[in-house]
Amino acid sequence: MAKSSKIEIIRHSTSHLLAAAVQQLFSGAKFGIGPVIANGFYYDFDLERSLKPDDLNKLEKKMKELLEKDLPFKKKELTIKEALDLFKKLKQPYKVELIEDLKKNEKAKSVKAGPDSGGKVTIYQTGDFIDLCRGPHVRSTKELKPDAFKLTRIAGAYWKGDEKNRMLQRIYGVTFNNKKELDQYLAQQAAAEKRDHRKIGKELDLFTFSDLVGPGLPLFTPKGVIIIDQLKKHIEQVCAKYGFEKVLTPHLAKIKLYELSGHAKKFSQELFRVTSERKHEMVIRPVLCPHHTQVYASRPRSYRDLPIRYMESEKQYRAEKPGEVGGLNRVYSITIEDGHIFCRIDQIKQEIKNLVKIVQDFYKPLGLWGKHWVSLSVRDHQHPEKYIGDKKDWDSCEKILKQISDQTNLKAQKKEGEAALYGPKLDFMFQDALGNQIQIPTIQLDFATPKRFGLSYINQDGQSVPPVMIHRAILGSYERFIALLIEHFAGAFPTWLSPIQAQIIPVSQKFNKYARQVEGQLRQEGIRVELNEDNETLGKKIRQGQLQKIPYLLIAGQQEQKTESIAVRDREKGDLGPVKTQKFISQIKEEIEKKK
Amino acid sequence: MAKSSKIEIIRHSTSHLLAAAVQQLFSGAKFGIGPVIANGFYYDFDLERSLKPDDLNKLEKKMKELLEKDLPFKKKELTIKEALDLFKKLKQPYKVELIEDLKKNEKAKSVKAGPDSGGKVTIYQTGDFIDLCRGPHVRSTKELKPDAFKLTRIAGAYWKGDEKNRMLQRIYGVTFNNKKELDQYLAQQAAAEKRDHRKIGKELDLFTFSDLVGPGLPLFTPKGVIIIDQLKKHIEQVCAKYGFEKVLTPHLAKIKLYELSGHAKKFSQELFRVTSERKHEMVIRPVLCPHHTQVYASRPRSYRDLPIRYMESEKQYRAEKPGEVGGLNRVYSITIEDGHIFCRIDQIKQEIKNLVKIVQDFYKPLGLWGKHWVSLSVRDHQHPEKYIGDKKDWDSCEKILKQISDQTNLKAQKKEGEAALYGPKLDFMFQDALGNQIQIPTIQLDFATPKRFGLSYINQDGQSVPPVMIHRAILGSYERFIALLIEHFAGAFPTWLSPIQAQIIPVSQKFNKYARQVEGQLRQEGIRVELNEDNETLGKKIRQGQLQKIPYLLIAGQQEQKTESIAVRDREKGDLGPVKTQKFISQIKEEIEKKK
Repeated sequence: MAKSSKIEIIRHSTSHLLAAAVQQLFSGAKFGIGPVIANGFYYDFDLERSLKPDDLNKLEKKMKELLEKDLPFKKKELTIKEALDLFKKLKQPYKVELIEDLKKNEKAKSVKAGPDSGGKVTIYQTGDFIDLCRGPHVRSTKELKPDAFKLTRIAGAYWKGDEKNRMLQRIYGVTFNNKKELDQYLAQQAAAEKRDHRKIGKELDLFTFSDLVGPGLPLFTPKGVIIIDQLKKHIEQVCAKYGFEKVLTPHLAKIKLYELSGHAKKFSQELFRVTSERKHEMVIRPVLCPHHTQVYASRPRSYRDLPIRYMESEKQYRAEKPGEVGGLNRVYSITIEDGHIFCRIDQIKQEIKNLVKIVQDFYKPLGLWGKHWVSLSVRDHQHPEKYIGDKKDWDSCEKILKQISDQTNLKAQKKEGEAALYGPKLDFMFQDALGNQIQIPTIQLDFATPKRFGLSYINQDGQSVPPVMIHRAILGSYERFIALLIEHFAGAFPTWLSPIQAQIIPVSQKFNKYARQVEGQLRQEGIRVELNEDNETLGKKIRQGQLQKIPYLLIAGQQEQKTESIAVRDREKGDLGPVKTQKFISQIKEEIEKKK
Repeated sequence: MAKSSKIEIIRHSTSHLLAAAVQQLFSGAKFGIGPVIANGFYYDFDLERSLKPDDLNKLEKKMKELLEKDLPFKKKELTIKEALDLFKKLKQPYKVELIEDLKKNEKAKSVKAGPDSGGKVTIYQTGDFIDLCRGPHVRSTKELKPDAFKLTRIAGAYWKGDEKNRMLQRIYGVTFNNKKELDQYLAQQAAAEKRDHRKIGKELDLFTFSDLVGPGLPLFTPKGVIIIDQLKKHIEQVCAKYGFEKVLTPHLAKIKLYELSGHAKKFSQELFRVTSERKHEMVIRPVLCPHHTQVYASRPRSYRDLPIRYMESEKQYRAEKPGEVGGLNRVYSITIEDGHIFCRIDQIKQEIKNLVKIVQDFYKPLGLWGKHWVSLSVRDHQHPEKYIGDKKDWDSCEKILKQISDQTNLKAQKKEGEAALYGPKLDFMFQDALGNQIQIPTIQLDFATPKRFGLSYINQDGQSVPPVMIHRAILGSYERFIALLIEHFAGAFPTWLSPIQAQIIPVSQKFNKYARQVEGQLRQEGIRVELNEDNETLGKKIRQGQLQKIPYLLIAGQQEQKTESIAVRDREKGDLGPVKTQKFISQIKEEIEKKK
């Protein structure tokens, strides 16, 4: 186990402090586990009543009281037998279960390692609270700062994460080195919440969920579809330049397709199985790749036909755990933008270089290119059994990717154990506006799959040999990508991507006719325009348009009508005053065209 | 039962003649049924060996022999008991089963109608052959013309169409009034076979099937996707003019969605059910409509928001009988172009008038508008239980459609019993190049579904009332539509729809460079162009291009290079001689733009 960092020790100790406070305020509390997580910790409790938000304040107060008492974290080593007796006496069934589990493990280990290979556990005592814990901890509660932690929320969580077990109450908290860091984190969180894609998605009417359709199955409303269509057009244009062609394949297949590809085993739990009264038996695809191998296999191929490059934006489905689906980030219906190249070995380098250009061309207009780094994700050399394919092929694949990284100045960082099932890959990591790291584009070299499917081409010597397959994802899943974009732009999409690019607001009903004329002019030029004829004040209509994050609000009144203009309100720059309608049209068209 | 027409009597008698011939050539033959179908008949047999194509010739010869014998068709009435005894003696188990079925039916009837309500059956004897049959027949085989019928093919068919029963051998035949009519029909069939979409689809590489993916699940290859994309663009452009917006919804839903809509019952057998190891239970949608109701339901609506018009091109899945899927006409994965309008009652007329315009705008560039007629498909008034919704709503819906037909000069013909589950409709019937009638576009009025889903809007008086739903299909399913277009155009698609619009053929390798330059010029202008640099003779390359039905072959040689031209070979008009490249570009662009 990795050594704990100082802040991790502080976070873990704060979780014990929380448990100690719970023990004082909730008699009969049973304790689950309380590990460290990113930025803080949680602790699971089995309590006689449901927690209310106000309980968090009371618990925080109690924690601070205990902290001031300068309670030491006393460590003690017990035999498993002693520990069992202790926690039975304390009426802590979850701890007892954990020790029983340890005992089973020890037995299993001792079979291998010979008898008496350990069998000790450690406990920590803080005030009256005793916990089963490996540690380490701070020496005393006084080392924790009363203004550097905060309890953040309550959630339900199954004991051991298994829905067959009892649902416990989980309290999350965050802990930092000092108040300043905590405040910084909380401010950042508040900003992230404002950008939450579920919130903005609803406000801007981009997608919805239905109880009758079910969770994990988003329905994209017209404005959301405009964004999807624009992204689709963008990726298709970029990829067409490098010879990609679109294919369109069904969502179902025989299970045999995935037994051959290896995905049936890998995604067994995530596989949706399909049956009918007429005795059909199929599965819904968890990935697209095997379908693309079948398009390749549909006719004989010669070395002159290669490379063949397929792309497709379609859905795949994965049976995620029902409790884990939510928003657009975890869904059953994943609209994947997927692509595969089938090529000769001597074409690999050029193809991968082109793919790097595709990533660049796609991400530049989104402002994400530049703040990125690349991972050269290779095998976990300790565990070759996790992968399919020959060792020799793996060696040469990893070598090729390394060479490309060197030659194209990608400066890829080697990451062991991050490879795909069938081969090593280049992964691109971006940073969004909130500073979060996002891993989406990936380029994967695969010698194994074509062999498994018996794919071939006739080489220059007239022999039938397997092609190389290169998997590439550029934007990944549309659902996650849209969630990312919403949060990155806080809903204020660049004009080319905005569902509504301009809204025309007549100053009063008197100018509705002129506003309609301007609307027609813009629509004629392919601009996505809306007219707000509501019988409201100008101020209110401008505020409505701003809340919808529309790039341009175009005010139409007396003066504008006379001069064939509109008064432009730019989403970023504010009021720009009157602009000739024709001039505005050519400006916005250029902005859209160039994806500024 | 409708009275048989003269030709039907002839066809039915020819099927008996076939059975009589089988009895003579295949000892121990057991007879299934032998009904009349379009253009002819079939007869199902249980034989000791498999039929070979040559057997059809032998049987035809035997039929002609029997025909010349002037055998009478002798009719006799028997009691059920007598008939059972007779066919048991003849060792005809299928006929015995049919009589047993009749007996059961008679019993069921006699419970209602009182005892002794019939119980007679008729048999017909022709030579040695005796058949259980209602008739009528010709008086003698001599009334049949030896040169007016033909046995066309052999197929397998389950007894009573049930895959749990034994597979019989079916012989199909056609019969006409005279040789001339037969020859005409056979010539037409030969023409249709040449246009068969499965054959042309393979030759032009538009789609494929994979044994690993499974039957009924076509995979569209790059050229096929180009056609789909062009159709999608066309329908989207046409519909956008009338205010349609795109939505995008998932393929899965809870079964409850379809229990509410009524489709669970209607499509019970066709429903694909979805489960997982994680205990998910869903279905794959058999139709799109319920998902669109949920997009409508995603936020409160006011009378000012209506009409709301959604369109979507996505897949729905139906568990067709495994033996019945084939080609693109019967598939599990149906890519449907579907659309729904939610509107107020006072908006119905205008919306339907617009939909008629949409049908016209979409079909005109395909050359199908004009040769069409419209059906006003109303309830089967004898069986109101087949439909959902109030009688009052049905009455007013049917009245509205009649009025629109009158006002817009559609001249819709009233067809009883052709309505949809939830309301009456206007159906458009076209005629393809082979003279086949095709029914695709449909406009359906639906008061029932919005009520079932509790959809509503706030009307001008502040009350919450249900909207009207109008279902509309324009091109129907892409799979069937593409099959239709392939057969209609025999693969020679209009230029705007052609996967490859022009192919450049250098006269020899010497002009590859010039050809590539021309290719770049055309591609720059968005023309789908291909370059044939194969080291073949010019003649062979031209023939290859013609087989691919490419609208324009552009020959590039010495003379063309000098004058910045290409020699144009038009698919229809043949060699047009040299044309300046720039001039050709503007001509083809106009042709594509105007969908000529």
